[in-house]
Amino acid sequence: MEIVLMDNLWVIIGTFLVFLMIGGFILLEAGSTRMKNAGHIAGKTIFTAGIGSLVFWAVGWGFIYGEGNALIGLSDFFYGDASISEEGLAPAVDFMFQMMFALVALTIAFGGFAERAKLSSYVIFAVLFSALIYPVVAHWIWGGGWLADHGKQDFAGSTVVHLTGAMAALAATIILKPRIGKYNKDGSPNELAGHNQVYTALGVLLLWVGWFGFNGASTFEVADAFFGFVVLNTQVAAAAGAVTAMFVAWALTGKADVPTTLNGALAGLVAITAPAGFVEPWAAVIIGMIGGIIVVFSMRLFDKAKIDDPIFALSVHGTVGVWGTLACGLFAVPAFSSEIGWGQPGLFYGGGFTQLGVQTMGVVASGIYAFVVAFIILKVMDKVMGGIRVSEEEEMVGLDLSEHGGYGYPENIPNPNDQKGA
Amino acid sequence: MEIVLMDNLWVIIGTFLVFLMIGGFILLEAGSTRMKNAGHIAGKTIFTAGIGSLVFWAVGWGFIYGEGNALIGLSDFFYGDASISEEGLAPAVDFMFQMMFALVALTIAFGGFAERAKLSSYVIFAVLFSALIYPVVAHWIWGGGWLADHGKQDFAGSTVVHLTGAMAALAATIILKPRIGKYNKDGSPNELAGHNQVYTALGVLLLWVGWFGFNGASTFEVADAFFGFVVLNTQVAAAAGAVTAMFVAWALTGKADVPTTLNGALAGLVAITAPAGFVEPWAAVIIGMIGGIIVVFSMRLFDKAKIDDPIFALSVHGTVGVWGTLACGLFAVPAFSSEIGWGQPGLFYGGGFTQLGVQTMGVVASGIYAFVVAFIILKVMDKVMGGIRVSEEEEMVGLDLSEHGGYGYPENIPNPNDQKGA
Amino acid sequence: MEIVLMDNLWVIIGTFLVFLMIGGFILLEAGSTRMKNAGHIAGKTIFTAGIGSLVFWAVGWGFIYGEGNALIGLSDFFYGDASISEEGLAPAVDFMFQMMFALVALTIAFGGFAERAKLSSYVIFAVLFSALIYPVVAHWIWGGGWLADHGKQDFAGSTVVHLTGAMAALAATIILKPRIGKYNKDGSPNELAGHNQVYTALGVLLLWVGWFGFNGASTFEVADAFFGFVVLNTQVAAAAGAVTAMFVAWALTGKADVPTTLNGALAGLVAITAPAGFVEPWAAVIIGMIGGIIVVFSMRLFDKAKIDDPIFALSVHGTVGVWGTLACGLFAVPAFSSEIGWGQPGLFYGGGFTQLGVQTMGVVASGIYAFVVAFIILKVMDKVMGGIRVSEEEEMVGLDLSEHGGYGYPENIPNPNDQKGA
Repeated sequence: MEIVLMDNLWVIIGTFLVFLMIGGFILLEAGSTRMKNAGHIAGKTIFTAGIGSLVFWAVGWGFIYGEGNALIGLSDFFYGDASISEEGLAPAVDFMFQMMFALVALTIAFGGFAERAKLSSYVIFAVLFSALIYPVVAHWIWGGGWLADHGKQDFAGSTVVHLTGAMAALAATIILKPRIGKYNKDGSPNELAGHNQVYTALGVLLLWVGWFGFNGASTFEVADAFFGFVVLNTQVAAAAGAVTAMFVAWALTGKADVPTTLNGALAGLVAITAPAGFVEPWAAVIIGMIGGIIVVFSMRLFDKAKIDDPIFALSVHGTVGVWGTLACGLFAVPAFSSEIGWGQPGLFYGGGFTQLGVQTMGVVASGIYAFVVAFIILKVMDKVMGGIRVSEEEEMVGLDLSEHGGYGYPENIPNPNDQKGA
Repeated sequence: MEIVLMDNLWVIIGTFLVFLMIGGFILLEAGSTRMKNAGHIAGKTIFTAGIGSLVFWAVGWGFIYGEGNALIGLSDFFYGDASISEEGLAPAVDFMFQMMFALVALTIAFGGFAERAKLSSYVIFAVLFSALIYPVVAHWIWGGGWLADHGKQDFAGSTVVHLTGAMAALAATIILKPRIGKYNKDGSPNELAGHNQVYTALGVLLLWVGWFGFNGASTFEVADAFFGFVVLNTQVAAAAGAVTAMFVAWALTGKADVPTTLNGALAGLVAITAPAGFVEPWAAVIIGMIGGIIVVFSMRLFDKAKIDDPIFALSVHGTVGVWGTLACGLFAVPAFSSEIGWGQPGLFYGGGFTQLGVQTMGVVASGIYAFVVAFIILKVMDKVMGGIRVSEEEEMVGLDLSEHGGYGYPENIPNPNDQKGA
Repeated sequence: MEIVLMDNLWVIIGTFLVFLMIGGFILLEAGSTRMKNAGHIAGKTIFTAGIGSLVFWAVGWGFIYGEGNALIGLSDFFYGDASISEEGLAPAVDFMFQMMFALVALTIAFGGFAERAKLSSYVIFAVLFSALIYPVVAHWIWGGGWLADHGKQDFAGSTVVHLTGAMAALAATIILKPRIGKYNKDGSPNELAGHNQVYTALGVLLLWVGWFGFNGASTFEVADAFFGFVVLNTQVAAAAGAVTAMFVAWALTGKADVPTTLNGALAGLVAITAPAGFVEPWAAVIIGMIGGIIVVFSMRLFDKAKIDDPIFALSVHGTVGVWGTLACGLFAVPAFSSEIGWGQPGLFYGGGFTQLGVQTMGVVASGIYAFVVAFIILKVMDKVMGGIRVSEEEEMVGLDLSEHGGYGYPENIPNPNDQKGA
């Protein structure tokens, strides 16, 4: 009995750490965008925590873990009888930990709306994403759905959380189109630099700390102190991502670009999220390094492809989320995958292409589902609401004023005609 | 024995989380006020953590938990023989957890001094509040005093911490009078907007995370993993408060005002603080929603009543603290109130008006005590010190310069004649 | 077995808390320096977390805890067979906790490079410090080396972490020479004020919270809930340091200088780091107070001695680190030093000068080693790299632009000719 209480203690600590990530996102997103939108970003993130929690309470948990079929759960809405708990945890503890992942996925999805979407359109999308998109993918992989039946490995959510959020962001950014001033007439991109790198760096640090709970508490138990191993893998992957991305940027541009370094740390974290409990530390270093390389080139590709991604959600959570999921199929160690009890060893451990195939199927199916449903929802909203993007004047003056009626920094009012603010 | 160690581990984790709230207050208070006072606010908050800890060590614990009478404890000063521990916790762990609540109450009380009180007057008041005001109310309700004898329910301090702090803030704000520029000659209020909404939002997030310890570790034990249920109630109440306040502001003004949204989250948290361990999740949602509504109208009422409340301490911690305390008398579930072992079921569970009456008595008695003693202390100080407010010139130039000899942002010096800084 | 799992849980929580200190350092360092270097400081701190983790993984742990001799460990590189664990913890948990201390020491060492060193020189030094300096001192005192054989007491690293980092910072600051504009022609110092006291204060608060893990989890076990006592000592020492330093500054200058108050809190924390598990709470208060006094005068002395210390690393971590180490030799209580199992009672408890002598020897030997090796490394680098300091123009324009190719605050570009930015 003591052990079960300790499991609960560990998972609730993980819950607190993941919720701290919301604070990391406030800083990451505000720091990566312009002053005139900082109050909007900060305020909508608290709103996100609110609406995401309420929708998860009302229907999210039921769609993921309720009794249903291979595609969706259909019981235990509004906390239900609170009796479902596959992990032997207290229902409320399990419920809270799972809620946090839903909040993070929604926060990632916001990336596609940044600096140009109407607040009202994000509000509606937040409800629909939290009810119809995230819970379905989570059910498929974590809730006993059809991908779980195929042995899809996703230790802590490279696919469920990061890829799902990023694919919704992709749909949004395609429909919303690039921000004013992002592309020149000849199609070449401008940098619309974020306004505060201290925020961004502290945001990354808070996300990094929170990730110890995101990955570590996904053990759901304290047995064998296996969580320590998961935390170690998380740490060295993040470290490798940060260092690698900084050197790649330095080599490419002659300057150790700060935002790229920070995205490298996040890339390491996203990459290790699926394999954190399945691989050895040296493999975690390699997975993080490759994540750090991929993120740099992905950022450049999206920029050239005229897909405007202000907070780098598509590269950090999308492209690298795919890499992390596939890395399981390469590096998963037999002993660990049986300890965790999911799936097969990776290609490099004699597992053949079986697990790699399952991982690929999971990425494709989840990615398509999230993208298509988000795209349809936003297209319909675009018609019905007379557009989901603010007017040109509103975008120039900033969403702080247009959507919230006051600047985030009233004593440092940005000049809307200033090119930096354009 | 293992279980007792786990109880200790849980409560020390709660201690850390509550102390993190001090960081939340640094940001909330600095963000809600003007640039010219930002260094002052930040520095005094660290001072607050220091002086509050020392006074609690010297006399606070002894007045609360020492052996004494129905009104006050009178032993175990200076950590005493460290043998008192009603909860079966290690003395140092219990001592530290309780200390944190005293720091939070003092931090809330500062709200009434913001942007116009002399540092010296706050320093003296901080000592007296920590010695004479907070410990007395805490003794009455948590230390075996007369309100405890009546079965007053206050799970984690809606009354003890929030209302006590807010009533002291009310006394201060009445005596200090409104800030220069807050009211026009015709009595209509101006908004003296806070200078950084990113700070404010991150502050709210840190407070939210810290509240998991504030409420959750107030179980004092890990038995039945009941803490998970308390955390769940805390989360959905905060969520409901944030979302509700945003929509109320949007409906009233046409804009989704950011500070109001943020105060809504805090209102949900304050409201659920007393009932967190006594009510069901659906009731927590309602309690949070009503908190989110109350806070909006309370802010407007104080503004109209010419009570200048820069950090919204009176509305968030005072008005909503009362609501939270009374909500126990409405929604307390028989099973939970007996699990916790305090008081009677609420009105909606057949408990009649008994518990509601006890709650009301607790609010009135505690509120009057905190207000009257704070008022007397400050009036005496006002006479003895030749005023507790800085001069008009000092207020215009800002407390950073007048009280601390240097600006908080030396490279962004505010213009004292600028209306935004007025 | 349950108890051992709880030990692991406690130490991994401590790991998370210490890693949060890296966030504290981002804010402390960025806030204490000028706008034009803020992005650089923030970005290099994330890089520090990355490179420090990788070097610790590769060789740091092996040099500290590997099998070797009295001077250095020489096995278990690259996480080795992960079988070494002197504390009975899971290898990965112990590994992670120890890694965090290496990161903090490196972050402290950066203080000597601030605002004028080339990024490339810091990158190389970071690798060498993490491989050759920190692990050697850590081996001597914590890894079974020659100072451990003499019974050197250093509960959580006043010497190992703080003094080692500070002595490396001293070597760097001497070789790099003062920042442009720091000293006038007549040798009198100017204040080059940090740009954001809110950052600094929040940084101190995060460091304070993190220190609960730094000191508290250095018990390595939950037995007797002794961690609560360590946390209590940590809290009252920090409180005493903050309050004392504020009043000392107030008495000396007539103003309650904010940076001094904040450094007082840190001084209390550094001072209690060595004795946290060996002394009684009243002694912790005295140790913190004296730390708070020492730090004020140390800051003034370095300033007069023309040793430019932008982030006060030499005073906070160096001078006060020495004080904390020696305080063990004065105040260590027989019962506690035997509970911890290290060393002898202090002078005031009848222990004579034995322990004080051992402490002094440890400070001198560790300090000299760290300083001399850092000095040699940097002198060699200075020759080989054609200087380790940026050019005068680069320093004027700021390291954000010169080293990273973009400002940390692109919408608040500092004026390089502005005296505040000089």
